[in-house]
Amino acid sequence: MSARERAEALDAADPLGRWRDRFVVADPELVYFDGNSLGRLPIATRDRLSRVIDQEWGADLIRSWEHWIDLPTTVGDRIAASVLGARPGEVLVTDSTTVNFYRLASAALDARPGRPVIVTDVDNFPTDRYVVEGLAASRGLDVRWIRADPVEGPQPEDVAAVLGPDVALVTLSHVAYRSGAIADLAGITALAHDAGALALWDLSHSAGAVPVELEAGGADLAVGCTYKYLNGGPGAPAYLYVRTEHQAGLRPPIWGWWSQREMFEMGERYEPETGIRAFLVGTPGVLALNAVDEGVALVAEAGLDAIRAKSVALTAYAVELHDELLAPPGFSLVTPRDPRRRGSHVAIGHPRAAELCRALVGRGVVPDYRRPNVIRFGLSPLTTSFHDVWRGLTVLAELAGA
Amino acid sequence: MSARERAEALDAADPLGRWRDRFVVADPELVYFDGNSLGRLPIATRDRLSRVIDQEWGADLIRSWEHWIDLPTTVGDRIAASVLGARPGEVLVTDSTTVNFYRLASAALDARPGRPVIVTDVDNFPTDRYVVEGLAASRGLDVRWIRADPVEGPQPEDVAAVLGPDVALVTLSHVAYRSGAIADLAGITALAHDAGALALWDLSHSAGAVPVELEAGGADLAVGCTYKYLNGGPGAPAYLYVRTEHQAGLRPPIWGWWSQREMFEMGERYEPETGIRAFLVGTPGVLALNAVDEGVALVAEAGLDAIRAKSVALTAYAVELHDELLAPPGFSLVTPRDPRRRGSHVAIGHPRAAELCRALVGRGVVPDYRRPNVIRFGLSPLTTSFHDVWRGLTVLAELAGA
Repeated sequence: MSARERAEALDAADPLGRWRDRFVVADPELVYFDGNSLGRLPIATRDRLSRVIDQEWGADLIRSWEHWIDLPTTVGDRIAASVLGARPGEVLVTDSTTVNFYRLASAALDARPGRPVIVTDVDNFPTDRYVVEGLAASRGLDVRWIRADPVEGPQPEDVAAVLGPDVALVTLSHVAYRSGAIADLAGITALAHDAGALALWDLSHSAGAVPVELEAGGADLAVGCTYKYLNGGPGAPAYLYVRTEHQAGLRPPIWGWWSQREMFEMGERYEPETGIRAFLVGTPGVLALNAVDEGVALVAEAGLDAIRAKSVALTAYAVELHDELLAPPGFSLVTPRDPRRRGSHVAIGHPRAAELCRALVGRGVVPDYRRPNVIRFGLSPLTTSFHDVWRGLTVLAELAGA
Repeated sequence: MSARERAEALDAADPLGRWRDRFVVADPELVYFDGNSLGRLPIATRDRLSRVIDQEWGADLIRSWEHWIDLPTTVGDRIAASVLGARPGEVLVTDSTTVNFYRLASAALDARPGRPVIVTDVDNFPTDRYVVEGLAASRGLDVRWIRADPVEGPQPEDVAAVLGPDVALVTLSHVAYRSGAIADLAGITALAHDAGALALWDLSHSAGAVPVELEAGGADLAVGCTYKYLNGGPGAPAYLYVRTEHQAGLRPPIWGWWSQREMFEMGERYEPETGIRAFLVGTPGVLALNAVDEGVALVAEAGLDAIRAKSVALTAYAVELHDELLAPPGFSLVTPRDPRRRGSHVAIGHPRAAELCRALVGRGVVPDYRRPNVIRFGLSPLTTSFHDVWRGLTVLAELAGA
């Protein structure tokens, strides 16, 4: 069976094959591999935004705040239950990933006074690294950088090697933004706990595509964005997770009015809410919160087991095609070969990656480029077909002169 | 001439009388006095959001980031020029007012080491007070509270009385959220500078209704929201202002990737941008940024001189009606009588304010209530008519049994 025939057979047998119909697809010929950067627009989201804009804002005006005010927690609970393996009252949707990461990291450091070290890895997403660097600079702490294998990502043994009684916080991405490697969330969290440290996870590249088990994995804190596999739209607010048992003991650094008990009393002094609302700050983006709700509802309806199965099949097929079509002319796989260790994107290295990326876009195939030499193919399980993978990688092989 | 006839004459002569047609008005009978809390939906915004959602997100997908990436600065420049009296490259639209306030206050405190006092007033907006309290707690500083006249707000002499060489930062609202009193931005900033302190202004209740002259007034730093008189929609991102001369010397505490020089190089260490982009954090809310752009464009087109003239006329007429209809049955004016000292809302006190507010809503008049005894009438110059004011205050008088 040819590579194309295999794609057709896989599409025919795909239980999620019709899910693309739930999304706006303006150009059916476009091969879109950036659902891991900006997920497609769900049709239900377009319709809901239209209602929110025309009716809730345009007609109902200020009175809509009666229900808008609960969106950060209700949408958070939905993400908790259907995406993050977390309990009700543990997740909020608000602010950006960076702001949430800063707030939780800062609260975690306050909770571990006298421990002067933050552990993270050099291949972690830039904003996480920069925030850590800034916190370390302002508090006179050190960052202990893990330099793990760039394809396989940080392993428990890499973390164990740098842990000690001086470590306050370990922070890593669950799925690496570049290689797509999955880190062992439960194993690394347990190691952090053994050393007396807290663990803060960035779930941006896993949530909605890879099962996340925050409660079962013993996670302390997590953040992530909603505009990738959760299809919340450009710049939609991010989420944050604080394990129930930590909520009373942690206090984030920005004492905003949305975390004030009886906020409309507008009391003279700050008296924070209990529970997850203590982690709110200011007025959240209402339009985008509604979009996140719809995006998450779609993921919940499809179910993460089915999504994960499709994701593994898509990336496995992409790895096969890489080996068949791309390895011979000099490409290399920058993503783990073991599907249990792989998220939902596949990174392929080539010295002329930048130029090839531009040429792909010219041929109607949209991946993204990560300097200096990586082409990243995001395979969003609800909207990517095996035929897309076949077409994208075949075009790439042609462009490379194979 | 009766009160109603005066309203009709004022509406007939109002050069902004037709501007309400530029907004969605679902119920022409509704008297909406909450444009200072959630501004109405401009028709141009509804249309633009529809294009942004369907075309830019739905069809163009990730490719739209080529122009979305500049929205925080281009919309910022528009606000700077048409609303804030600031120069290009001094204003960003991003995050919430609270997050921006925290970041600028924190940077200002870092720039004044060894000065252990922050000055603000007890009637300042809650989130500003709580953030100040949090910063003081985490840094071991003191808050020196101004207790000014609750109607007239903090005067330069109130500020002068608490200033000294120990003060790092003075922060006040330009227009008080409760009384509507305008503070002397230039005079108070000059006093702060004489004492060696920086001044940080919250413009949420003035921008778009009251002229703001940040450059001419010598302002250092400012923040404000866009969902009131700028009609940016519920939870739309806020703006921040950093005077050009301060941009190189101040470093905000959250080192996010959006402030990294050549952010897509994703360099190993944080190297901030120069200029106002050094004050970005994470991915901004794209849908709402587009809405802010349209809202600000309307204000720019109408012109702040015309808007201010209408605002003064509206509040003056409301004060007249208060004296005529509401003072006799026991209401009191909680807003300055001098129009030069008054923003665009009028606050009226009554012991049964909460109950009367609910009754007003039942009669199709929507003000808002501020505990314990204030009814606040936001008179948004582009969408409020003199007839609205007449009707709202007449209904209130009836409800009070006048």
